[in-house]
Parts: sequence; C-alpha cells; structure tokens
Amino acid sequence: MTTSHQIILLAHGSSDPRWCETFEQLAAPTLSSVQHSAIAYMELAEPSLDTIISAGKANGTLNYTIVPLFLAAGRHLRKDVPAMIEQLESEHGVHIKLADPIGKNPQLGDAIRDVVLQELADTGS
Amino acid sequence: MTTSHQIILLAHGSSDPRWCETFEQLAAPTLSSVQHSAIAYMELAEPSLDTIISAGKANGTLNYTIVPLFLAAGRHLRKDVPAMIEQLESEHGVHIKLADPIGKNPQLGDAIRDVVLQELADTGS
Repeated sequence: MTTSHQIILLAHGSSDPRWCETFEQLAAPTLSSVQHSAIAYMELAEPSLDTIISAGKANGTLNYTIVPLFLAAGRHLRKDVPAMIEQLESEHGVHIKLADPIGKNPQLGDAIRDVVLQELADTGS
Repeated sequence: MTTSHQIILLAHGSSDPRWCETFEQLAAPTLSSVQHSAIAYMELAEPSLDTIISAGKANGTLNYTIVPLFLAAGRHLRKDVPAMIEQLESEHGVHIKLADPIGKNPQLGDAIRDVVLQELADTGS
C-alpha cells in the first residue's frame, strides 16, 4: 500500500542521547496520533531526513511536510534546511513542504503559559 | 511594594530581530497571565538576565525562577546558564531556581501534536 503524504518532525539533533530522548518524548503524541509521521534529525543523530525520505520513497510516498521542532527560525531553518530540501527533492524526485517552526504557532505560547502556571503552583507562589 | 518572587522566561537570543520577535510572541500569553514575569535573553539581545535581576533587586525581589524557552537541555542549559546563575546569585545576593526547559513538559508534546493536526487539515490530507 502506498502512502500519499508523510509528516516529518525535524529536530536539530545532537550527539547527546539525552537531547534526542527529549525530542522523542516531544514527538510521541504526534507519532501515535498521525499515521504517516516520523521524527528525523538535521544532523548528529539518526534517522536523518535522507533516511526517512529514502524509506518513504521506497514505499511510494512522494509528498512530505517537514514540521520543524524549533521554537524560532534561525540560520538552520532559513538556509541549511531549505538547501537540504532542494537536494533531497532533486535526488529522490519527491516534493517537500517546509512548514513554519512550531514556535510560530499560538498554541505553543499557550502551552508555555500553562507550564509556568504549573511551575508557580508547584513552588507555592 | 516589593515582589517576593519573579518568573523569568529565558530565550537564547540572537542579533536577528525576527528571532527575538518570535520569542516575544511565545512569551506574550505568560506575560499577560502572570503578574511578576519577564522575558530575558542568554546572549546577543536585551534584556539580559543581569538587566532583569538588577531591576528586580532594586524593587526588593530576592527570589527568581528561570523557565528556559528551550525544547531540550544542551550545553547552554547544562553548563553556561548554571554558571551565569551562580555569578548572578553571588553578585546580587538573590536566589535563582532553574526550572526544566519547557520541552520537558508533556503539554509541549500535546501542543506539537495539535500543530501537526492543524497543518494536515490545512493541506487537506
């Protein structure tokens, strides 16, 4: 069976397994709710974007949306990732959409407020 | 009137004003819900932690909780920020608690799932 579209949650990546573990936990609710979704790392950890897209292409998936697990867009999202996408599209013959970093979404600001209110409740302030 | 306790949302900081603008938007729901709260930048942007704590100390605030607007703890949160805190505590005679990065909180993973489901609805998949 082919899948028409896949979501890729893209984290920065690190050689520190604790870093990757945090992102795997952050991705877990998405991976269990969205059937065709995966996590990938920009650098320093596996699976890479190339690994995920090679596997998807082998299953016939031609369309991908990358949702960056970044709070804001810096050099990586403005330059490095678009360059990687251009190369992956050309190499695999797929179409890849780069979504806004998650921090551009108002739901993240609300979640941060809830975290702070919880922190205040815990410290009894 | 003195304030017993202040929340500081700590972002990385950047010389790119678009970066800081994203974090100001992320902080906005917290700043409007939590009376004694402020945003500060670790580097490359103002206000710094020192600016916020100097002003707080002048108002008699001796206790601070730093909530890092970071998804995961890397070198900055494991080494650089604790070193800054030690110096600020010694210099200003205050107590500073470093909370977990926001990404360690399950509410963030749920918010990411909601962002992805919205993204899927927008692309009609």
